[in-house]
Amino acid sequence: MTQLRPLLCGVELGGTKCVCLIGTDPDHILAQAAVATTDPGATLRQIADLLDNWKQAYGPIGAIGIASFGPLDLRSGSPSFGHVTSTVKAGWAGTDVVGHLRRVHRVPVGFNTDVAGAAIAEGRWGLARGLADFAYITVGTGVGVGLVVAGKPVFGCNHTELGHLRVTRAPTDVWPGMCRFHGDCVEGLASGPAIAARAGLPAENIPDESPVWELVAHPLAQLMHALVLATAPRRILVGGGVVQGRPQLLGRVRCLLEESLNGYLDLEQLTGGLERYIVPPGLGALAGPLGALALAADAYIMAQSSRAAVI
Amino acid sequence: MTQLRPLLCGVELGGTKCVCLIGTDPDHILAQAAVATTDPGATLRQIADLLDNWKQAYGPIGAIGIASFGPLDLRSGSPSFGHVTSTVKAGWAGTDVVGHLRRVHRVPVGFNTDVAGAAIAEGRWGLARGLADFAYITVGTGVGVGLVVAGKPVFGCNHTELGHLRVTRAPTDVWPGMCRFHGDCVEGLASGPAIAARAGLPAENIPDESPVWELVAHPLAQLMHALVLATAPRRILVGGGVVQGRPQLLGRVRCLLEESLNGYLDLEQLTGGLERYIVPPGLGALAGPLGALALAADAYIMAQSSRAAVI
Repeated sequence: MTQLRPLLCGVELGGTKCVCLIGTDPDHILAQAAVATTDPGATLRQIADLLDNWKQAYGPIGAIGIASFGPLDLRSGSPSFGHVTSTVKAGWAGTDVVGHLRRVHRVPVGFNTDVAGAAIAEGRWGLARGLADFAYITVGTGVGVGLVVAGKPVFGCNHTELGHLRVTRAPTDVWPGMCRFHGDCVEGLASGPAIAARAGLPAENIPDESPVWELVAHPLAQLMHALVLATAPRRILVGGGVVQGRPQLLGRVRCLLEESLNGYLDLEQLTGGLERYIVPPGLGALAGPLGALALAADAYIMAQSSRAAVI
Repeated sequence: MTQLRPLLCGVELGGTKCVCLIGTDPDHILAQAAVATTDPGATLRQIADLLDNWKQAYGPIGAIGIASFGPLDLRSGSPSFGHVTSTVKAGWAGTDVVGHLRRVHRVPVGFNTDVAGAAIAEGRWGLARGLADFAYITVGTGVGVGLVVAGKPVFGCNHTELGHLRVTRAPTDVWPGMCRFHGDCVEGLASGPAIAARAGLPAENIPDESPVWELVAHPLAQLMHALVLATAPRRILVGGGVVQGRPQLLGRVRCLLEESLNGYLDLEQLTGGLERYIVPPGLGALAGPLGALALAADAYIMAQSSRAAVI
């Protein structure tokens, strides 16, 4: 059964802003807009209104995809499915994100973490095309990991939360880190706010030659060490505000990963060379919002196929 | 097409001995024997001879499964598929384990890590039945992890090697560890030889109340922390000589895991309670050799179905 391509809306819920898209794929985006992330009620109302305006302007929406900061409840059948759970983002713990948008728009809603969404988008349209096993890391307001194994984001009793991995420290680094839960986990050391707190100025204003970057590269390399040993991704894409425009940072991460594994694995043979293994995302800064669009596409397909099964 | 149940041989290649089985499943084992692990040529010849004796005694063998210490080359199509690669086990690096047994016995050979095999066996016959996402950890001569995601052992550019995860140290613990590659990775701190080196006597002779166990529990809890955040297994089975008969050690690991995650995830809700989440394997000490039998069963089924496809 051939379907006309439906219009899809992607909503990337971020720590500081929510980026929304309407379109069908990266080459057909009709509009894009951002809504500031304030309290959940006001933010979700603004998003619902924006989508309503787009509906008036462009026609009916086939599905909505929400790619959100976490942790999230993604367990189908759970009474709190579609909720943000224990997030550090003030006021958002327990917010029923999916329910809110579904009640207003009454279309299928896809829901996953921002990083799982971005990983799906990179697998469909970006630099992970054709790969069944890969990882997408964002280093920004937080540190998040989307981990794809055998073609799907992993999901056991929870989604991946590897940004909160505890890591060995650079030998001279005794700064306590700033994760509310773990102090010096990867996010507590390498997120934008952590870098700013340590350096006393915003990450984007810190020059490339500052010794601070070595202390950011170290926990990121430890995260890669864990990833390579855990599911052995075929590629690791690293995006987010902290990494964008800092090619020297990824270069240093590659070196430190090699030092850390210390010849235990033949990285050249397994990865085809670290220069091509640890790379910026193919979709750049759009990986996040396009992730939400990919989740919308999946939700639409799922709804169509269950409808077809009923007919 | 109904098949008579074929006789299968399982070979668990271990660091000190190789345990071999002939049978069809855990309830139908006809014979079991161990061969000391010496140099690869002599060891594999002895195993091939043992299997030959069994063939004379019990009838034709349908398939062989090899569950081996690693790292291994498991990439189908790789020129070194079926080889042990950079192992610390003297003389074994580069050994073509699969080729050796296949040349002698000319039957389908299944091949995976000892821990992936044990995980498959636990999923089929043990305490992970019905679970699509779980982990099997062995703490013995080394520390190995078999990681099952969506029903299959993960395999990206390599198999899991999480025993070599670098971990944060217990606050007072400055012992350098003894992994040849990483010093104080999990294996370098918590394997049997590491415990013996630190304590000055074999792990099995150390009393339960020794403070050494706290320093073993700590890296194991850090490994669990990483696992829960990586693929969020629905259960973690922990076996191997170091853990067997030491229920207080797993108890301490559960406490330290909870302390380490520090409320970031609602472990009670996600795991159903750590007492049922981190448990000894259902197949006990037989998880390893039964893992090899499970690999043999899979290899037999695979060969039958490709034969059916050709017919």
